[in-house]
Amino acid sequence: MIILGIDPGLERVGYGVIKREGSRLTVIDYGLILTPRVAITERLAQIHREVLALIETHRPDAMATERLVFAANKTTAMDVSKALGVILLASSEKGLEWAEYTPPEVKQGVVGVGSADKKQVEFMVTKLLSLPKPPKPDDVADALAVAICHAMRSRVRI
Amino acid sequence: MIILGIDPGLERVGYGVIKREGSRLTVIDYGLILTPRVAITERLAQIHREVLALIETHRPDAMATERLVFAANKTTAMDVSKALGVILLASSEKGLEWAEYTPPEVKQGVVGVGSADKKQVEFMVTKLLSLPKPPKPDDVADALAVAICHAMRSRVRI
Repeated sequence: MIILGIDPGLERVGYGVIKREGSRLTVIDYGLILTPRVAITERLAQIHREVLALIETHRPDAMATERLVFAANKTTAMDVSKALGVILLASSEKGLEWAEYTPPEVKQGVVGVGSADKKQVEFMVTKLLSLPKPPKPDDVADALAVAICHAMRSRVRI
Repeated sequence: MIILGIDPGLERVGYGVIKREGSRLTVIDYGLILTPRVAITERLAQIHREVLALIETHRPDAMATERLVFAANKTTAMDVSKALGVILLASSEKGLEWAEYTPPEVKQGVVGVGSADKKQVEFMVTKLLSLPKPPKPDDVADALAVAICHAMRSRVRI
């Protein structure tokens, strides 16, 4: 099973593609989609295009994202949601299953503890995927974490 | 000049297509895109598809929306933003100019007073477009209002 994890944003979208075979996880690809400071319509078009390309390249079985939780900045929340909108559209256009997890669910899935901190999540992502060093920046680590969470959950489910 | 006004939402998207020739405004089409209670990915795909179809049918020169302002419900704000994301993507895919106006700008553009109330806006939309009766529901009236606002503004600008 191949899973595409996404950490949405308008300026930067983190992505991670992992494969689960039995209990073994391997990383296929990870990185950032960066959009320049152009009109939002162009940024959304770029994000949509690049996510479609990721799906075409890796043919994942599912896409996973972390539920957006915003405390303060409403403008940011709305911009990130616009980006998530075109990402969800891409998954729908490619017939991809989509799953969303809350932050504690992601921590539970990766570390085994819903209240784990960022460092612990980063450590476990690195370890579970046998990466030579912790994935950077945070957007990428978060995308890999939600992909792992989905892999762990679907292992239990299936 | 043909303008597509949109009032975004996940359950219902109001739209209005108007034409400006000199100082004369006429209405070409207006209505609602309604999405059933299915997965959000499918709803976003439907909205994207129907907005693309509206653009293909009416070949507008510009799309206008009212800036989203949310006081209370963050979940609603984020869902409406996801819908706006795929609507903006459609405008970008069709090479459409997009303009966004604040609520007072829309009132100013339609009624001439930034603090006008809903009834006054509805009255002026009906009058300016020579409609037989006020457009219903509010989503449609709001979509026509922002289209009129853009028509008035671009008249001044050009």
